[in-house]
Amino acid sequence: MKSYSELTREELLELKSELEKKYEEAKAEGLALDMSRGKPSPAQLDLSRGMLDVLNSSSELKAENGTDVRNYGLLEGIYEARKLMGDIMGVPAENVIVCGNASLNIMYDLVSRAEVFGFDGCTPWAKLDKVKFLCPAPGYDRHFGITELFGIEMITVPMNEDGPDMDIVEKYVNNDESVKGIWCVPKYSNPQGVVYSDETVKRFAALKPAAKDFRVFWDNAYAVHDLYPEKEVKLLNIFDECKKNGNENMVFELCSTSKISFSGAGISAVASSKNNIEEIKKYMTKQTIGYDKINQLRHVKYFKDINGIKEHMKKHAALLRPKFEAVLDTLEKDLAGTGVGTWTKPLGGYFISFEGLEGTAKAVVQKCKDAGMTLTGAGATYPYKNDPKDSNIRIAPSYPSLEEMSKAAALFTICVRLVSIDKILETK
Amino acid sequence: MKSYSELTREELLELKSELEKKYEEAKAEGLALDMSRGKPSPAQLDLSRGMLDVLNSSSELKAENGTDVRNYGLLEGIYEARKLMGDIMGVPAENVIVCGNASLNIMYDLVSRAEVFGFDGCTPWAKLDKVKFLCPAPGYDRHFGITELFGIEMITVPMNEDGPDMDIVEKYVNNDESVKGIWCVPKYSNPQGVVYSDETVKRFAALKPAAKDFRVFWDNAYAVHDLYPEKEVKLLNIFDECKKNGNENMVFELCSTSKISFSGAGISAVASSKNNIEEIKKYMTKQTIGYDKINQLRHVKYFKDINGIKEHMKKHAALLRPKFEAVLDTLEKDLAGTGVGTWTKPLGGYFISFEGLEGTAKAVVQKCKDAGMTLTGAGATYPYKNDPKDSNIRIAPSYPSLEEMSKAAALFTICVRLVSIDKILETK
Repeated sequence: MKSYSELTREELLELKSELEKKYEEAKAEGLALDMSRGKPSPAQLDLSRGMLDVLNSSSELKAENGTDVRNYGLLEGIYEARKLMGDIMGVPAENVIVCGNASLNIMYDLVSRAEVFGFDGCTPWAKLDKVKFLCPAPGYDRHFGITELFGIEMITVPMNEDGPDMDIVEKYVNNDESVKGIWCVPKYSNPQGVVYSDETVKRFAALKPAAKDFRVFWDNAYAVHDLYPEKEVKLLNIFDECKKNGNENMVFELCSTSKISFSGAGISAVASSKNNIEEIKKYMTKQTIGYDKINQLRHVKYFKDINGIKEHMKKHAALLRPKFEAVLDTLEKDLAGTGVGTWTKPLGGYFISFEGLEGTAKAVVQKCKDAGMTLTGAGATYPYKNDPKDSNIRIAPSYPSLEEMSKAAALFTICVRLVSIDKILETK
Repeated sequence: MKSYSELTREELLELKSELEKKYEEAKAEGLALDMSRGKPSPAQLDLSRGMLDVLNSSSELKAENGTDVRNYGLLEGIYEARKLMGDIMGVPAENVIVCGNASLNIMYDLVSRAEVFGFDGCTPWAKLDKVKFLCPAPGYDRHFGITELFGIEMITVPMNEDGPDMDIVEKYVNNDESVKGIWCVPKYSNPQGVVYSDETVKRFAALKPAAKDFRVFWDNAYAVHDLYPEKEVKLLNIFDECKKNGNENMVFELCSTSKISFSGAGISAVASSKNNIEEIKKYMTKQTIGYDKINQLRHVKYFKDINGIKEHMKKHAALLRPKFEAVLDTLEKDLAGTGVGTWTKPLGGYFISFEGLEGTAKAVVQKCKDAGMTLTGAGATYPYKNDPKDSNIRIAPSYPSLEEMSKAAALFTICVRLVSIDKILETK
């Protein structure tokens, strides 16, 4: 295909007219497609239905150590659930606390505690004049939402194909004491699907933070979420690397079963150093009597162990893969060579990141919406919802059916092309 | 029985020698009794086993409004669960948010948000020189634990038979702008089992707080926890009264099913004015993707409605009543007339409050512990764990079996008598 910028004004206008016809046809279909969030589809949720049978009224409702999972107590969760979640992260059970249904809530609580009480004896962040977080972007909007709420200054760090730009990360972390944290999705990053390279992980682990209470929020949300399980991509274990540098207290790793079992009713976990785990428990014991241990036991009984999880994830992959491929095929077919966009081709996770011409993302999202297709708001992938180039769009192929997804992808490229042509025409 | 203070030194020493023999006998039994917390017994937890069958792999996992309860979303909980929890509190579903398994966590989050963000546009508490909470005491140790953690100054308010001393409450709340909250367990208070009188509730609702952001934390933990369901004691609806005074924003009411279904795996809820509910949601949406809706649906399917809950609570009462009566009978038999203690005779809730001679509570708790019986730490029922008279002991009869409970009660009065005799002997 010829690059649009090389087409004449007349050629562009003709193409536009064709595309407008297609757009009107799509609009007439009265689509109602939601591609706004990384929501598993009903078929994916059906994969875990069996979990609702593993505990019933005649079950022995006890953890391995004899604890009655129905009653109060066991703040850190039942051991076997800590082991299961630890195995997802590659961390010993002893370094894991199992929490409620949302790892987001763990991250919120961590930031909130740092603000009010401070980490490890340091000044509470709320008492400091300035607190900054590094935000590799495009990134996860809900991460940015937490730091924005607490009035933490967010500094955008560019994302490369092997993770955040580590030169910039090192410059800030090692020199600026007001930099207290960084948000990372190290495997199949949201939204690019980037897996941090070994080199990137090693550079993280070797940081020499100016602030003693600087923390890496290592949100391993897609730790076992491979689309092509046979080519599973390995992420280096950050805690192993941190140990070599005496940096064990620097990292909080998070994970959950939200995209393994039930998105709204899974279990989540935090892993960290012994020191940090003790500190978390000190505050948790004032905050709650402990999280739902019946649901923890349900997860353990259903998945059994990390191999059970991996087998289960192959079924998710089988449902997700065709949807990703449908989007990627359509992008390729409709946009390759046009010069109006680039996109990632992730091997796992929940998103495809699309990079359009500067100044087009908002208009594309709006145009899609007008035809019945909801995308994540343009800009949401950047701190303060402000994409400086207005070019990034997050595509979430998981929720619609395969058929809907194919239609959605076609509509998406129509909108991208129409908006891009208008943009190019401005300069002709 | 003759009052111990009227006995001669010799009579006391003889009695002491008898009791010491009994104490050694009890000790030799090698008891291991836990009466430290208001934990339901295994038999009580068994009452809700059927809840584990109402949802299984072939269930339609949808809320009334069609929401897939397995997926993300519906921050405030499914409507039917809001209705159920609202009915427990006597509040419309619209004013209710259903949360996770611990109402304690809701209270922690409310205080935490007030500290960091402030209520209703007011200055965040963390930015004020002084923040005070009124703490009717004896009271619930975990309430005091939250305010202590946040460095809030706790002011003890005496508890009368109809609730907190309202003259003192009014004096503080209506005149001191630094008084920002009060902890209340208005029905079957922890630990006395006091139900606030209509007059008390009306005086609460008619408060004219000096601080716009003063809040009543109305922890209705035992709303349906009658020991004698046929003589159910009514608590006046505080929101109805608040409306008459234009005070709708002043109250957060809390409840949970922790002592209805499963203590570690129930659901909890907060009720408040429309304004406050909107404010809570504004922060919650940054904090979580919403709580476990499968568990919410499980509760609704199992209990169906408030009548289902009430029927279920009769079964709890049937298990708890004999234990309370065993304790009360033993206290009566062994201590009536001795002048060494008074105790409450609650019609509901989870505790009996025992008031011994000044300076005896710690010693009694220790003596019980030495014989294998764990009570709540003496002092725990007061702010800063500091019972100024060292006289209050919380008895939690729910967890041990009836047989164990009878032994425990007998051991308790032996310890009370021994410690009290020593105390009296000091003055002879």
